[in-house]
Amino acid sequence: MSEFQSKIKTIEWVKTQTGGHSLMVDQTKIPYAFEKVEIKTLKSMYDAIKTMIVRGAPAIGIAGAHGCALFALELLSKYAPTEDLWQNITHVTTENLDENKRNSFFEELEDGFNYLNSSRPTAVNLSWAIGEQKKVVENSKNLALKDVCVNLINNAIKLENEDIEINKKIGDFGADVVPKGAGILTHCNAGALATVGYGTALGVVRSAFARDNTIKVFADETRPRGQGAKITTFELIKDGIPVTLITDGMCSYFMRNKMIDMVVVGADRIAANGDTANKIGTSTVAIAAKYYNIPFYVAAPKSTIDLSIKSGNDIIIELRDEDEVTMVNGKRICAEGVNIINPSFDITDNTLIAGIITEYGIFKPENLKNIENC
Amino acid sequence: MSEFQSKIKTIEWVKTQTGGHSLMVDQTKIPYAFEKVEIKTLKSMYDAIKTMIVRGAPAIGIAGAHGCALFALELLSKYAPTEDLWQNITHVTTENLDENKRNSFFEELEDGFNYLNSSRPTAVNLSWAIGEQKKVVENSKNLALKDVCVNLINNAIKLENEDIEINKKIGDFGADVVPKGAGILTHCNAGALATVGYGTALGVVRSAFARDNTIKVFADETRPRGQGAKITTFELIKDGIPVTLITDGMCSYFMRNKMIDMVVVGADRIAANGDTANKIGTSTVAIAAKYYNIPFYVAAPKSTIDLSIKSGNDIIIELRDEDEVTMVNGKRICAEGVNIINPSFDITDNTLIAGIITEYGIFKPENLKNIENC
Repeated sequence: MSEFQSKIKTIEWVKTQTGGHSLMVDQTKIPYAFEKVEIKTLKSMYDAIKTMIVRGAPAIGIAGAHGCALFALELLSKYAPTEDLWQNITHVTTENLDENKRNSFFEELEDGFNYLNSSRPTAVNLSWAIGEQKKVVENSKNLALKDVCVNLINNAIKLENEDIEINKKIGDFGADVVPKGAGILTHCNAGALATVGYGTALGVVRSAFARDNTIKVFADETRPRGQGAKITTFELIKDGIPVTLITDGMCSYFMRNKMIDMVVVGADRIAANGDTANKIGTSTVAIAAKYYNIPFYVAAPKSTIDLSIKSGNDIIIELRDEDEVTMVNGKRICAEGVNIINPSFDITDNTLIAGIITEYGIFKPENLKNIENC
Repeated sequence: MSEFQSKIKTIEWVKTQTGGHSLMVDQTKIPYAFEKVEIKTLKSMYDAIKTMIVRGAPAIGIAGAHGCALFALELLSKYAPTEDLWQNITHVTTENLDENKRNSFFEELEDGFNYLNSSRPTAVNLSWAIGEQKKVVENSKNLALKDVCVNLINNAIKLENEDIEINKKIGDFGADVVPKGAGILTHCNAGALATVGYGTALGVVRSAFARDNTIKVFADETRPRGQGAKITTFELIKDGIPVTLITDGMCSYFMRNKMIDMVVVGADRIAANGDTANKIGTSTVAIAAKYYNIPFYVAAPKSTIDLSIKSGNDIIIELRDEDEVTMVNGKRICAEGVNIINPSFDITDNTLIAGIITEYGIFKPENLKNIENC
């Protein structure tokens, strides 16, 4: 793991006597500042996801898991306040709380989970992680409420740790298909800062760079929000990996001039047939890569794969605020009176994808369903 | 012609008793301000082209023609100052100037023309227009120097007027291939503000809109300089033509969702085989259009076609300053330490082009050479 990776975690749970809180890098401030923000309530977690203080499908997943634990703690302080959450786990019968109140706790908890799940629609990792927390709640129905909270926190921390391990596996599988000295194009940021650490697409880059330090990255700036310009350049420069920033329309130029040998991107939701929702602009790059016979890979954990969805046509695409397109750094960049449609994601057809790089290996889109049994 | 068009001219020669000067819209200020700037010397015309106060291949051509006339006037005031340029044309013998001085005038003039021609390399219209002025000089070698100037000015004004007429013809031919109620995607600005008036690609839009006011335009913002966001939205809104601004990566999304029925762009240089140099990002759009079976048209006057160049591989692509990519409105948008390569144009392969719309009709790339005889 590189020096940069050993120093930062994008999102982590900070334990305190009464439970703790979520601590995350404020990604809206990169590259101008590298600051962390404490998130202590369900509402502020909802806002952090919605306003993209935390972004990147895997990181959003962990934020969702944290948000569930935070809300359980909020409800605990309302129904059964406790001085020290970390005492031994106690059975429900030792808790002096009537059944109605316990039921209210669980009902409110579920409503809160569903509210959090509505913060952003496209990345499946959010609903996946909240689903994992719902299972914890289901398995904790006989415990004292404080111990429901303990289990939610512990599960959130477990998911956190697993995320980094998964990304390293993705990185290793992906590095196997990176040509020597490759120019690697990526879109948006699927890096350490889109995950807990190491990254998915940039995990592939990091693992490849560890084996061959002659590889080079081309980063699409990724308008409208500029995650490539702001976040990908920031984290690669910190790691000492050479990165050239290009505008989104330039990919064809660099492909035609044989400076790009492969493309690797992250994903927000992958349908059963391999169709992939990822940051707006991804499918444009994939089409260009196909035209120039350059392999296009998607790097994502199993939790991003949604086998319940048959094809990309059924994935909901989030439409975001028009200011993201019309304003840059607080200044308008276009004439008044223009129409805006601002889809945050697009669908890359499975036929454009050479492979989906997961922690269980690289799958051709047509074989993706096999991951169910991994 | 729309009301907006009848009101403005992007570039025009203003006659004065001693000759006159060039008056052009300062395109670096749009959409924030609509100001005109007077250009009075060769050097300031060189700078205006280089810094893109005037941009758009046909407009650059006229700027080149103006620049030639301006420099002739500068030399005239050095070699044979005159109070009133517009007296009757006089024969060289009435001019009291020795042969050496006349030779110096013509030598300096040619050097100036070549200097101006080096201001931007990719758009052929610049060297075409300067070439037209060189022919005027060649045919004026027996005239008094002041009458060389008169002829250069008159030819510049003739090219100016022809440009608008040519664009209207392009518009009419192009409108024939616009489907009813079409969504038309364009990249960069090939509008009134890229020409003397009316526009090439947007000339097609204007002519089509005059016939069918249900068409809609999608304008790529066209990073890095944002000519689509700044200039295309500005001029279409002024004309009352509905325009939706999208980021450069979004084209695939709107094509996949069947909101784009055709693409039309301008050109900076078209090779004999139809390969087309146009603003960076154009070929990416063309590839996406091909993938979705959407016809992709290039609209350009004959003066943009360079039959001396066999294919796009031989077209010189201008590389511009890295600040264009790293800075937006004076603020940095990426991390320090990133590499930048900033090609200003790219090459769209002829196989991606449904037709090249000219003032002589629409040519398939494989038949483009026939325009030589038009």
